[in-house]
Amino acid sequence: MEEESCYTFDFDRHMDPERFERIKAFAADKETPFVVIDLERIGDKYDELRRLLPYAKVYYAVKANPDDEILKMLIARGCHFDIASVFELDQMLRLGARPDDLSYGNTIKKARHIAYAYEKGVRLFSTDSEEDVRKLAANAPGSKVFFRLLTDGSGADWPLSRKFGAHPDTIYRLILLAAELGLDPYGVSFHVGSQQRDIGQWDNAIATCRYLFDSVAQEGVHLRMINLGGGFPANYVSPTHDIELYSQEITRFLEEDFGDQAPEILIEPGRSLVGDAGVLVSEVVLVSKKSEFNQYSWVYLDVGKFGGLIETIDEAIKYPIFVDAGGAPKEAILAGPTCDSMDILYEDTKYEVPGDITEGDRVYIFTTGAYTTSYSSVNFNGFPPLKAYIFRG
Amino acid sequence: MEEESCYTFDFDRHMDPERFERIKAFAADKETPFVVIDLERIGDKYDELRRLLPYAKVYYAVKANPDDEILKMLIARGCHFDIASVFELDQMLRLGARPDDLSYGNTIKKARHIAYAYEKGVRLFSTDSEEDVRKLAANAPGSKVFFRLLTDGSGADWPLSRKFGAHPDTIYRLILLAAELGLDPYGVSFHVGSQQRDIGQWDNAIATCRYLFDSVAQEGVHLRMINLGGGFPANYVSPTHDIELYSQEITRFLEEDFGDQAPEILIEPGRSLVGDAGVLVSEVVLVSKKSEFNQYSWVYLDVGKFGGLIETIDEAIKYPIFVDAGGAPKEAILAGPTCDSMDILYEDTKYEVPGDITEGDRVYIFTTGAYTTSYSSVNFNGFPPLKAYIFRG
Repeated sequence: MEEESCYTFDFDRHMDPERFERIKAFAADKETPFVVIDLERIGDKYDELRRLLPYAKVYYAVKANPDDEILKMLIARGCHFDIASVFELDQMLRLGARPDDLSYGNTIKKARHIAYAYEKGVRLFSTDSEEDVRKLAANAPGSKVFFRLLTDGSGADWPLSRKFGAHPDTIYRLILLAAELGLDPYGVSFHVGSQQRDIGQWDNAIATCRYLFDSVAQEGVHLRMINLGGGFPANYVSPTHDIELYSQEITRFLEEDFGDQAPEILIEPGRSLVGDAGVLVSEVVLVSKKSEFNQYSWVYLDVGKFGGLIETIDEAIKYPIFVDAGGAPKEAILAGPTCDSMDILYEDTKYEVPGDITEGDRVYIFTTGAYTTSYSSVNFNGFPPLKAYIFRG
Repeated sequence: MEEESCYTFDFDRHMDPERFERIKAFAADKETPFVVIDLERIGDKYDELRRLLPYAKVYYAVKANPDDEILKMLIARGCHFDIASVFELDQMLRLGARPDDLSYGNTIKKARHIAYAYEKGVRLFSTDSEEDVRKLAANAPGSKVFFRLLTDGSGADWPLSRKFGAHPDTIYRLILLAAELGLDPYGVSFHVGSQQRDIGQWDNAIATCRYLFDSVAQEGVHLRMINLGGGFPANYVSPTHDIELYSQEITRFLEEDFGDQAPEILIEPGRSLVGDAGVLVSEVVLVSKKSEFNQYSWVYLDVGKFGGLIETIDEAIKYPIFVDAGGAPKEAILAGPTCDSMDILYEDTKYEVPGDITEGDRVYIFTTGAYTTSYSSVNFNGFPPLKAYIFRG
């Protein structure tokens, strides 16, 4: 990775200063590290998405942040949910979600887990392999299934691999097989990669959907849904287009390919709904230099890769950071508190920190509402998992 | 990373077949995934190390596997412990360890955590920066401190970064500063990198210790201890020398540099004590191909990177794997069960699996006693943390 210098915080882009003051006050008496979840901001994001894509059914990707309070608020607003496991299924049912509002979106599932979900009333499943289609036919007979296309994920900050999805020729065969086995071939899904910054990626994928709709129609199978997946960005350091432009463009791509025969549209936002709503509050443990004439300071925080910030692997996700200290800016390497030498947040990307930064200063890490608490390790080096507090300011 | 093919299992190297049968029987009725910890094997490894390095005080690195049963067994055998946090300190005291037998080995610590450890009776600390030395002087007055040298970690499968340690010139100044501030400059430590396969790395580090001992002696400070750190290997796929050769060579290096004025020797084994004692029992969730003519099968297990196998990042640690199935071997990509596309175990390194591998087959992942359970995520994708069972066969 190239070395690059990196601005760290811009109130205009990341948070209203007055709101930040209130969150700081809310956080003041709590032992770091923890994430403050701004529930209202998630509600606003959900409403905005509903307004910009009124024709789309929103399936929140529970894995992004499975906090009970977030899920209850979204249930109350009529949201649907994309679940990744029977464990998430149990949680959603416990919180009062209706099985009809759930989509079992993981293409990797045990036969007995499919049977369990079916027994609980789930009738919508994703798939991408013959083995899984056969398991679905046997354990969730007659259910709606959608078929996940392989995309290459280029342009995404947290890219996809080839782990999910299959090539269009394989998907074509799977659709016909599902119909033959008594399943309901409902539609096609894809995922352009999380934090996708190239909107054109949706264009390619939607065109492939059109091609698949037409191909299987010739065999008498009529698909009626496209699941656009996730990939809408949260507001990290690297600039993205705003969600409005994403919505406009995606709507245009759909119109170009489907005209007035628009299929049902599902979307599975995770990061874009909850990411911006999280402020991780951390504390400086130590500031040191490796040798007398070393250019950079090492700033060690009480949170690191294994305490919730695992998306800093390869410095993929660059969180905006605000340090509550004074002094002329200097560049620093940021690292976590464990004895693991992998536990470095940013070394190639130098973050600017205030020159007077010292032990005990609070460090606010923004856009940490997604893929943090649930990723946290159980007790690595003895450190407890990342806590979360709900802010209802 | 280069693509390489990889043998997967060799009973001669990894486990006595009769013992494996007993572990399989013990595991048979338990819901996967989980790790079986073979307690006797850890005891044997500890005894072996005591026999091979009789002059060394063993400080087990608790972070490698903080299971209560392992710790209680080691306390009973008179082991000492290297702790990484006050949370590990609390655990050790709860289990009955004496504070005198603990070393606070993390150079990154909050002042109030130092004070807490001191209050609980800990009198041995590691350090590598001026800021930390000053905190120790203020919060743990008169304690023994040892100074961590920066090493480059080359030759290690799980390499070190520059996160820990300082250059010899900085260490020299820190030793004199510690003496001046009323601390007891006890010795020097280094860590050659976890799973270090180049024994010569210890030679370089010990020579630097000798140089430091002499330099500070000229200023009237007499160091009396070397902490050799960890780095002794566990038995993964890549072959290593056996622990006997490590011991012989290290003993020789010490004699060459220190003759009959040998200092006290501490070692901090983690991985080498507990790694081989773990067998992770997993189940195949799905076997699939991405397209009809694809060369490789994808084998999805019910455990992955976020369920305890995070050391497969960059395919750094290659675990030996045994699949309980028949058929001619074929090469496969191994992946975990979550919806995260990073959750792939081995893609560049192709593992051989039996041709008839199918859903429900048990997959035994060996040498998983270290850095697995405690690294596991809290509930990523809803999946619960990795369980552990103690086997007393």
